[in-house]
Amino acid sequence: MSAPVGDIGLIGLAVMGQNLILNMNDKGFTVVAYNRTTSKVDDFLANEAKGTKVQGAHSIQELCAKLKRPRKIILLVKAGPAVDSFIQQLEPYLEKGDIVIDGGNSHYPDSIRRTKELEAKGLLFVGSGVSGGEEGARHGPSLMPGGSTAAWPAIKEIFQKTAAQVNGEPCCDWVGETGSGHYVKMVHNGIEYGDMQLIAEAYDILKRGLGIHESEIADIFTTWNKGVLDSFLIEITANILKFNDDDGEPLVTKILDKAGQKGTGKWTAIAALDAGTAVTLIGEAVFARCLSAIKEERVRASKVINGPQREPFRGDKQQFIDDLEQALYASKIISYTQGFMLMRETAKELNWTLNYAGIARMWRGGCIIKSVFLGDITSAYEKNKDLESLLFDDFFNKAVHKAQPGWRRVIAQACLWGIPTPAFSTALAFFDGYRSEVVPANLLQAQRDYFGAHTFRVMPGKENPRLLKDRDIHINWTGRGGNVSASSYSA
Amino acid sequence: MSAPVGDIGLIGLAVMGQNLILNMNDKGFTVVAYNRTTSKVDDFLANEAKGTKVQGAHSIQELCAKLKRPRKIILLVKAGPAVDSFIQQLEPYLEKGDIVIDGGNSHYPDSIRRTKELEAKGLLFVGSGVSGGEEGARHGPSLMPGGSTAAWPAIKEIFQKTAAQVNGEPCCDWVGETGSGHYVKMVHNGIEYGDMQLIAEAYDILKRGLGIHESEIADIFTTWNKGVLDSFLIEITANILKFNDDDGEPLVTKILDKAGQKGTGKWTAIAALDAGTAVTLIGEAVFARCLSAIKEERVRASKVINGPQREPFRGDKQQFIDDLEQALYASKIISYTQGFMLMRETAKELNWTLNYAGIARMWRGGCIIKSVFLGDITSAYEKNKDLESLLFDDFFNKAVHKAQPGWRRVIAQACLWGIPTPAFSTALAFFDGYRSEVVPANLLQAQRDYFGAHTFRVMPGKENPRLLKDRDIHINWTGRGGNVSASSYSA
Repeated sequence: MSAPVGDIGLIGLAVMGQNLILNMNDKGFTVVAYNRTTSKVDDFLANEAKGTKVQGAHSIQELCAKLKRPRKIILLVKAGPAVDSFIQQLEPYLEKGDIVIDGGNSHYPDSIRRTKELEAKGLLFVGSGVSGGEEGARHGPSLMPGGSTAAWPAIKEIFQKTAAQVNGEPCCDWVGETGSGHYVKMVHNGIEYGDMQLIAEAYDILKRGLGIHESEIADIFTTWNKGVLDSFLIEITANILKFNDDDGEPLVTKILDKAGQKGTGKWTAIAALDAGTAVTLIGEAVFARCLSAIKEERVRASKVINGPQREPFRGDKQQFIDDLEQALYASKIISYTQGFMLMRETAKELNWTLNYAGIARMWRGGCIIKSVFLGDITSAYEKNKDLESLLFDDFFNKAVHKAQPGWRRVIAQACLWGIPTPAFSTALAFFDGYRSEVVPANLLQAQRDYFGAHTFRVMPGKENPRLLKDRDIHINWTGRGGNVSASSYSA
Repeated sequence: MSAPVGDIGLIGLAVMGQNLILNMNDKGFTVVAYNRTTSKVDDFLANEAKGTKVQGAHSIQELCAKLKRPRKIILLVKAGPAVDSFIQQLEPYLEKGDIVIDGGNSHYPDSIRRTKELEAKGLLFVGSGVSGGEEGARHGPSLMPGGSTAAWPAIKEIFQKTAAQVNGEPCCDWVGETGSGHYVKMVHNGIEYGDMQLIAEAYDILKRGLGIHESEIADIFTTWNKGVLDSFLIEITANILKFNDDDGEPLVTKILDKAGQKGTGKWTAIAALDAGTAVTLIGEAVFARCLSAIKEERVRASKVINGPQREPFRGDKQQFIDDLEQALYASKIISYTQGFMLMRETAKELNWTLNYAGIARMWRGGCIIKSVFLGDITSAYEKNKDLESLLFDDFFNKAVHKAQPGWRRVIAQACLWGIPTPAFSTALAFFDGYRSEVVPANLLQAQRDYFGAHTFRVMPGKENPRLLKDRDIHINWTGRGGNVSASSYSA
């Protein structure tokens, strides 16, 4: 057998895998391609990969034999048991120091586990977020690798050259320990859910509220794409809205309004609940997809529940559109503020050292949420790596102050119109809660103590002999019942 | 040794356990009390239980020896390992057909597991929701038992007599299979989170928006308690707001505005995400507690982020207060609609047969969310046990139509004032989404197909040769890239 020529192997020839291979090939690397259904390998070599340096393999053994050491093998297969199954199939053909890279949408606890398992066997594991869809994979994705730290020097060149470049900087850097690559990718996807939901709400307001046709809405998004909202998702939204079916009708109006949600958006919301962090915008975005999914029930509901009579808009239309741009921008600031809060909390809990500027830089290009905005977040964390919240950064603080009057007007109007704005609304509610020195949770605590003897603490500055500092205080609100507090039981 | 006299045993003498024992004693049952720290048993017998028929036990063995067969033992201990530990300690002293009842706030998957484990050993297991806090436990809680069906006849009398009674009907019935008792209790607690958050938002609007003093807000709640909102939580809110500290200041204003959330509210939100059901109000209520918990960060934020200039309210104050009552009522209808949607979905998934009228009846009295409202829900499900949604019931359909103009005005005003209303707002967003035949998820689906080849379905009535019915359709939006769709990879 001849000396191995492969710089890297890739398992899984669905669209993402094929495109990533072609991309790595373009960057000068020799990729060995394998797929469980091996006819796919032949098809790929005979068509998309024709004329490239790409090598095929018809077995795991052949794949491993064709790779230079330390072997680097990317799995781009369905998250879950398939990943463990391929790792198991690979193991007999791997040697100490070889690197298995999972580029699928694996859940980060699995990547934590796999890092430990493979390291225990002398192998290295990398869980890498890969974002950018078809286009990104083909021309430069955002790559978020984390896991065995020793693997980074060996894969750095391939990863950084394959990734998207923005201003000469690659959208790829080492994220951190164990499952942090997939964690950050998960938060990225959650944020993507949020960004998409915000755009959908803006579209709905323009269409149902202002009564504007898709072709004109496309122009509005095109204009927005030249300002603070400049981003891939705004750009493709304009393209989508301009795309007509053969009869001249916008194709989007013929697409069933049911969106799936069983993926990483949900995981982000659950991670937020587990971390006790108010990542409300992603939560609402996931639930909005759930609500979209019960189409048949909504259709029945639409027949028996009426909203308000929708009067034609009599105000300044352009002003309202500008307000809407600000509403979208401010809500987006809140969503990213929440996302970074979540990563901060989790890093604390799992003892990860995350480089927030680096994360924003990885997301700035190549991926679905790529935007000018992420350059501003990069700058914010470059100025202050310990920034507590994006809202404390001068740039974003000014931006949100400027945006808030229009933001409020849009939501108030949507409420009166009867157009749902779950993401806009929760963003504003978070903003108003976050900037409130006192929220009405004091009443909640009083209620909990009243009915369950759960005790409360005293507000700073209000201490007195009955309300002592740093004590769990129980008040006998009714004059009945005992004075025992709920020490071991939580109702 | 004399013949056993105990009708039922109870382990765990925190406030809930003590009160439940005294309650069962009042109803004529002989209860045997045990606690790990046995001095608590003596204290209890010498004080709270003095002059009652309550028996003490200083060991698990003594406890079991004092109980009539089949033994019935309620655990009221901290959810988690303590429950398994006590079950393990009990097992050597139990005989076939004896019943272990977990009355703590256990997570329903644990109750599913414990039912199976104990049944495999010839024992019976009941996971019972117990709600009502101190007062409920003492004078009649809401009890939600589920698990080994064979246990029900043996515990029915004790449970139904101990439970609260409303119009001569006990707030206790058999919930269903395996973990359904704790599941229903979990949803109950989630709804409790929601109800409390809604009240807190109303309080905040009255205080910060209208500038009304706590003593007058108490009067408003007292008035509301005579109308559609008539409920325990509204009643105690009025009492709390009237409760002054020694200096005449409302005590509530001296309570730290940080609320805990690590319990069943969070579980409900996670269960909702897992079931793919849009239980948005509970989600927001949990996140509102998370936001309350970062008090110090909020205080810092309050110094650098300004809200809108708050103008004095110039409209009709009483009208606005009436609107607020309707906003609270409508939001509550949405919250319960969502809660029952969740139970329906879960019952489908886990093959439980749940009696929705029975559940509403159990919650109608004895528990924290007890209300006249739950009587109306009972009626709705009694009229139609297969009711798809509360919003399809005539009574609630009319109620929500009547409420919606005021509901919208309140939220619009709160947005402009800068007062956070996460729960009110999400309820309205759900309502407006639920009654929308078309939501903008068609744009989401277009985006997902654009960047990830995720495919979409055609809107009914819009089919054509390019957009075939029941097909996963992929459009080459850009004219670039392949035509392969994302079959095994989800970005």
